[in-house]
Amino acid sequence: MAVYTEVGDEDLIAFVAQYDIGEALSATGIVEGVENSNYLLSTTVGNFILTLYENRVHSADLPFFLGLKEHLAAKGIACPVPVRARDGKMLHKLSNRQAAIVTFLAGMWPRRIQPYHCGELGRALALMHLAGNDFALRRSNDLSVQSWRSLLCRSADRADEVQQGLAEDLETELAALELNWPDTLPCGIIHADLFPDNVFFRGPELTGLIDFYFACTDMFAYDIAICMNAWCFEADGSFNVTKAKRLLTAYGRVRDFSDDELAALPVLARGAAMRFLLTRLYDWLYTPADALVTKKDPLEHWKRLQFHQRVTGPQDYGLV
Amino acid sequence: MAVYTEVGDEDLIAFVAQYDIGEALSATGIVEGVENSNYLLSTTVGNFILTLYENRVHSADLPFFLGLKEHLAAKGIACPVPVRARDGKMLHKLSNRQAAIVTFLAGMWPRRIQPYHCGELGRALALMHLAGNDFALRRSNDLSVQSWRSLLCRSADRADEVQQGLAEDLETELAALELNWPDTLPCGIIHADLFPDNVFFRGPELTGLIDFYFACTDMFAYDIAICMNAWCFEADGSFNVTKAKRLLTAYGRVRDFSDDELAALPVLARGAAMRFLLTRLYDWLYTPADALVTKKDPLEHWKRLQFHQRVTGPQDYGLV
Repeated sequence: MAVYTEVGDEDLIAFVAQYDIGEALSATGIVEGVENSNYLLSTTVGNFILTLYENRVHSADLPFFLGLKEHLAAKGIACPVPVRARDGKMLHKLSNRQAAIVTFLAGMWPRRIQPYHCGELGRALALMHLAGNDFALRRSNDLSVQSWRSLLCRSADRADEVQQGLAEDLETELAALELNWPDTLPCGIIHADLFPDNVFFRGPELTGLIDFYFACTDMFAYDIAICMNAWCFEADGSFNVTKAKRLLTAYGRVRDFSDDELAALPVLARGAAMRFLLTRLYDWLYTPADALVTKKDPLEHWKRLQFHQRVTGPQDYGLV
Repeated sequence: MAVYTEVGDEDLIAFVAQYDIGEALSATGIVEGVENSNYLLSTTVGNFILTLYENRVHSADLPFFLGLKEHLAAKGIACPVPVRARDGKMLHKLSNRQAAIVTFLAGMWPRRIQPYHCGELGRALALMHLAGNDFALRRSNDLSVQSWRSLLCRSADRADEVQQGLAEDLETELAALELNWPDTLPCGIIHADLFPDNVFFRGPELTGLIDFYFACTDMFAYDIAICMNAWCFEADGSFNVTKAKRLLTAYGRVRDFSDDELAALPVLARGAAMRFLLTRLYDWLYTPADALVTKKDPLEHWKRLQFHQRVTGPQDYGLV
């Protein structure tokens, strides 16, 4: 559920009246998002998304998230676009929360990933990386390598409940990642969470990217690695080299990626798997059984990590 | 949360293709409703609500609920209208559930009830009662007087946790209601749950009625009594006779209500309070503290019931 804060009719009407988007007709609480309260806002001119930022989100990050979407949209990336009020600002108070209105992007995310999805994704990812190049704000990645040890500490003593020996395996892998993590690769704005449910398609065509609340400044190739893990493994855990090839080839047609980036892909992909494994592991162990959130199996990412440990070169990702 | 059943992109596209409502663009899970899974469905021609009926709803009742909305809409009552597929049917299977599409009614419900709201409500209620007159289907009210004793039995042994002596007070009141419950008053289709959150306004104008999942065949005056309890008491528990007068007068201008109905209002209003008190009492005592539902104070309705016990004639409801 994603409505923590109720919005009354009179407050809503007054809030929307600050914008040039017609008159508020309704606000329907929607299930999307776990951190904020989200409403589908219907006005006399169309549909929008109204978000009330709950205290879990650092308010200092809001100008980055909103400014980024505005910047990317202006560069032609299909994503929700923040609407500025008549005073020129994107954030205003509603029901005692910081709130923003963004355009409603209709779309469906693909449940059965096909190779053509991965091609579209690779192209869109590269376009987004290029479009972010001259964005003025920065935000460090607080879920990258330097945070993994403390994440692991929080779950280590119970990790073996999930799989015998997992704590030790993770400790060994983490040491290797810390030692080998690249630090000279090209950086810029990355999405950092581009799983299928954040990518809309209409038929064969990618129509939009959503949910930029993990976006940050980090290595472009790390974003590629996250996508490879999220899109190129089958339900049985096997790696689909055709999908990876489509993803990487389509990406490379838009933004050259260097031999250094290519060579770093296996370690970045192990790191990407580690990052999602660690947050899922904590949720798995410490989320109450009756909570709203569907717990995701952390071992899924452990299997992906092990695949990348065995990679010997670009040919294992479908490249020659 | 009101999304119990997920709908995949391919299933949604195929489902919507059975209807003449354009192509499916997105389905956004919405928070409304506690019994079913509800989505705001966006297509190339507009917005709709897609409902997947979960097993809690008796599927035998669905033709009544859907047929009633279609009937009322055809008679000019503003309510969500079921959309028939090309095969002429309102119900089809989706994700292994019975599912229906209704029109999206944009609207906001009033948080601060003013007398003019009650006037609009009275008029709309009477129009709905008249419009339902030639609806062919019937559905008995399974939450009326004959069900209250068994409802009370489920909570009686813990009722005193809520208020000392409540179990005995309810027992005494229930006996009086069973003895004096009218059985010769005019009957027809009633909404039976017309609280403010089920009535939309735009400015001073009532724009729609929603949520017909308690609608049934019962006394018209009982529906009026439910509305009086839901709209004419202030937050401090006091009865606002101006609001009641507006409600009853506006109702009476559209549909004559007889002296018998008027005379029965106090006992019907006590019954209406009893009905909501009993379901709330059970939820209060037996809903886990960490459940999604906001528990509502059952004693609110006990105070309303006590007000109606003291009523001596129509003048107490603002009528001369």
